[in-house]
Amino acid sequence: MAYDDFLMASTPMKIALWQTPPSSDVETCLARLGSAVAEAANAGADLFVSPEMFVGGYNIGADAVRAHAALFEDVRKNLCRLAASHKIALVIGLPSPNRDRHFNSCIAINKMGHQLALYHKTHLFGNVDRAQFTAGNSLSPVFDLCGWRVGLAICYDIEFPEVARDLALRGADLIVTPTANMEPFDSVAARIVPARAEENAIYIAYCNYHGHEGAFNYNGLSCICGPDGADRIRAGKSDTGLFYATLSRDELQASRQNQSHLNDRRPDLYGISK
Amino acid sequence: MAYDDFLMASTPMKIALWQTPPSSDVETCLARLGSAVAEAANAGADLFVSPEMFVGGYNIGADAVRAHAALFEDVRKNLCRLAASHKIALVIGLPSPNRDRHFNSCIAINKMGHQLALYHKTHLFGNVDRAQFTAGNSLSPVFDLCGWRVGLAICYDIEFPEVARDLALRGADLIVTPTANMEPFDSVAARIVPARAEENAIYIAYCNYHGHEGAFNYNGLSCICGPDGADRIRAGKSDTGLFYATLSRDELQASRQNQSHLNDRRPDLYGISK
Repeated sequence: MAYDDFLMASTPMKIALWQTPPSSDVETCLARLGSAVAEAANAGADLFVSPEMFVGGYNIGADAVRAHAALFEDVRKNLCRLAASHKIALVIGLPSPNRDRHFNSCIAINKMGHQLALYHKTHLFGNVDRAQFTAGNSLSPVFDLCGWRVGLAICYDIEFPEVARDLALRGADLIVTPTANMEPFDSVAARIVPARAEENAIYIAYCNYHGHEGAFNYNGLSCICGPDGADRIRAGKSDTGLFYATLSRDELQASRQNQSHLNDRRPDLYGISK
Repeated sequence: MAYDDFLMASTPMKIALWQTPPSSDVETCLARLGSAVAEAANAGADLFVSPEMFVGGYNIGADAVRAHAALFEDVRKNLCRLAASHKIALVIGLPSPNRDRHFNSCIAINKMGHQLALYHKTHLFGNVDRAQFTAGNSLSPVFDLCGWRVGLAICYDIEFPEVARDLALRGADLIVTPTANMEPFDSVAARIVPARAEENAIYIAYCNYHGHEGAFNYNGLSCICGPDGADRIRAGKSDTGLFYATLSRDELQASRQNQSHLNDRRPDLYGISK
């Protein structure tokens, strides 16, 4: 555990979700991100979360993904500097390079500007994801951030109960999920994400776009759900800006005393679903 | 597939959920059940579902469970006759005998009065379940009923995504779930059951008590959720009586064309959650 994480271990964590329209220009994205991160840091947030593939946009075609992925190392250094200069942790969606088709990734950076994890989306959704990306081949690590155990998932990943369960069984307190969810799939934010939180007694921070990108009409509804499945914060479908909630260690522990799902599993019986 | 099931294979299935208070006397239960089953059959239902442990009640203590389980074979024959005489399939909660502590079971019987399955609850909830019952050691079979592929779960079982996933991967179109869910756990019926239906693109028929039994205040909310996760029927917390919905093969197939979760799983990655 890093020294700053050690200092934070007994404190709450304030999260800022940035629900915003996408931009397809990388420089514009980084400039907009700089302003939003500064605002969140000024508001006392410990962690800032962007939507999926925020750096350069999501529904942009394989050629644009390739061009943006080539900038990965520069973007990465820029984000590490941004985190360190504002003393705020970041989880940001961006493309990362691979041999042929690139990864749909998100990077986690701590308040000192050190990269903690780079996760590649493992469950690709539909034709757009498959045309643009290669699926990652491992679930997220569970890492320490501000004294909390954190795992990552991207958009469609969180719809699979297996993903959240795996992270929870590896000790995650929080799953951070950048997403680019669109009409008509409101039920993911409204029903599935809260269910994942409740059935695992964990927090989930789910950060979506609003607005349009090509044929996609993003449906907002970014949320932080508590370990009882209830919303701690919920954006509307068209709201724009920063949405804050604070995670409480006491609340998490109380929920886990009332919740027994992780202990009461019967993995000996789950034959075909392994 | 039985001959009557073959005849039904292309037709919808009308389900009756019986949301009712519990009774602790077995003869009273069977008499009440006879009337309710007759009413459901007259309304054209193909399948009648009771709450968990309907025969003799749920929160009754280990001695009463033992006494009721000793009647199992008589009760079973009675239920088979009831199904055959009204030409309606049944899923009924009842105790079944075991060496020491007995099973919390449900029995599925077809319209000809033949037993199709006897499932023992595999996930025991809290002190009442553990004091009264032994957990079963296998998930439900998936069997043919009225031309539909059906699996069983009891109450707390359905809260585990692994259970519904396992049944869905074995081909279930419908999971029938007798339950005895109480305050303050409204979110199971309101959030978790719909999520299970949606994430597996299956129907779930969830039949609860209302009213009181010892310290338990049952919270109703019996429902049939469709493969898109939306309610097809939903009882209130204190409603009493029969609640009907009809399953449609066309609706199921349409949902599965829009839903890709079962195909898009990455079981190679789900290490610890197996």
